[in-house]
Amino acid sequence: MNVAIGIDLGGTSIKGALVNDQGECLYEVTCPTEAEQKGEVILSHIDQLCQELIAQSPSASIQIIGLGTPGIVDPKQGGVISGAHNLPGWVGTPFLFHLQDTFNCPAIAHNDVTIMTYGEFQAGAAQGATNAVCITLGTGIGGGFIFNQTIYEGSTGYAGEVGHMIIEPNGRLCTCGSYGCWEAYASATALVKQAHNQGWPENSDCSAKIIFEHAANGNSLAQELVASYIEHLSTGVANLINICNPDVFVIGGGVSHAGQQLFEPLLATVQPKTMAFAFKSCHIRPATLGNKAGVIGAALFALHSLP
Amino acid sequence: MNVAIGIDLGGTSIKGALVNDQGECLYEVTCPTEAEQKGEVILSHIDQLCQELIAQSPSASIQIIGLGTPGIVDPKQGGVISGAHNLPGWVGTPFLFHLQDTFNCPAIAHNDVTIMTYGEFQAGAAQGATNAVCITLGTGIGGGFIFNQTIYEGSTGYAGEVGHMIIEPNGRLCTCGSYGCWEAYASATALVKQAHNQGWPENSDCSAKIIFEHAANGNSLAQELVASYIEHLSTGVANLINICNPDVFVIGGGVSHAGQQLFEPLLATVQPKTMAFAFKSCHIRPATLGNKAGVIGAALFALHSLP
Repeated sequence: MNVAIGIDLGGTSIKGALVNDQGECLYEVTCPTEAEQKGEVILSHIDQLCQELIAQSPSASIQIIGLGTPGIVDPKQGGVISGAHNLPGWVGTPFLFHLQDTFNCPAIAHNDVTIMTYGEFQAGAAQGATNAVCITLGTGIGGGFIFNQTIYEGSTGYAGEVGHMIIEPNGRLCTCGSYGCWEAYASATALVKQAHNQGWPENSDCSAKIIFEHAANGNSLAQELVASYIEHLSTGVANLINICNPDVFVIGGGVSHAGQQLFEPLLATVQPKTMAFAFKSCHIRPATLGNKAGVIGAALFALHSLP
Repeated sequence: MNVAIGIDLGGTSIKGALVNDQGECLYEVTCPTEAEQKGEVILSHIDQLCQELIAQSPSASIQIIGLGTPGIVDPKQGGVISGAHNLPGWVGTPFLFHLQDTFNCPAIAHNDVTIMTYGEFQAGAAQGATNAVCITLGTGIGGGFIFNQTIYEGSTGYAGEVGHMIIEPNGRLCTCGSYGCWEAYASATALVKQAHNQGWPENSDCSAKIIFEHAANGNSLAQELVASYIEHLSTGVANLINICNPDVFVIGGGVSHAGQQLFEPLLATVQPKTMAFAFKSCHIRPATLGNKAGVIGAALFALHSLP
């Protein structure tokens, strides 16, 4: 049995797993990232996770380590060369060389959204797709593409910045400095921000999950927020369908757990905004790997890179 | 020397050319399409053009006929199976079988925008690109993609419907029935329509070309129209750069002949709407094959399909 270590480096936590070539997680570990620390500190956490996973490895023969990280990876430099704004100390850390030396096995890394997309493509909601668009609704909106059954990452690795697609000219200010970006309307963060702007009770908990729950229970403010959220979400989804004509459109991130409460009105709102033939041939569905997409994608990407 | 016939079937005219494998047009012919006629009539025009071209062929050995057509081609059915709304009689006409029989050589066809994109990729503004986005500003806005040095056409051949990307929610009604589509703002047709809406003198000629000329000559209404046009154009261009991270972005169609009057303010407007790294690595430039992109693309696509 081929086994790899998959590592998913996030801004809050680092997840690690032993994953077999069927995309099954055999053992999982996690620890805080300490994103504000130097790269060496973050790397020492990854070392620790790898050691724990190796100790649990059934055959003691890990074939390769795969890692998904924010930013753009340059294998020649052994690390992230740009992006990864939430992990400033991580840029320039030659973690690939370090992991190869320390664990005496090959190591490979790629952008985290691309890795998650690869996970869903290989073992999740986009399995069997020829062309898939995967988006994650979280702090922002990340996007990844599988085109012609291969990762599409653009000319310098930055394809999929779908969150900064402008859907409302001169609209809300985005964290990127531009106005009217999709993620300023349709990320989980945007939904919560909008709730506060529209008078969500100050002493009451507020998250995307809670807003959806309140909407399901008949709260009119929550229903209004959800309807407006889905309207904006649908514009970006429709645009990507018209542009890319995918056969599968995967939506991940916490918001996607709302299930039919999200997907039923979303599909009804996307349809009139898309070309009929493109809509008809596209399956819009929730991600199925959840927060394991990163570790599974990293491990499978690594295993498939082996000669 | 390898020579092919390239045919570019449009709603108004059919263009044909003898093209060598360097993408050079050796001889060109054209005739009206008679778009409202039956498929057989349109096909008889194409026959006539092919005969004229064969009569001019230096070696009398045409290797293959390539054809760009509106709509989606199914080679198994020998013709267009859907789309091509401007040529209703053409859908279902098995023109590929007919051309093969009549001229005793292979014939191949593909969607016209894809063919033009391929022409610019092989012999025009996108030569040498790894990933290119090509758009045409005309009656609508067509889009074609080269991803990983290969035509990307999506799951059912409909990728590149960039004209129906929504950039203004609840905005202008588009011919597709949706609201706020990019082509309702940034096609040549939209510019002319807007001119009439904003009081362009009724007894005065009006075209995109004329509006740009008047703007260059200091006419304030024309300047206002052009500025607003470029503002909207830039939103879609920026979105496609953020989504696709191409190294080359080609803009064709009549409007692109405005040259620096278009491209200088366009680049200045696109920049703040794009992620810095994606903008920096993308060359935005006018198409160079002009109205020959279709015939050159069709011929080269055909020649490159030969074993």
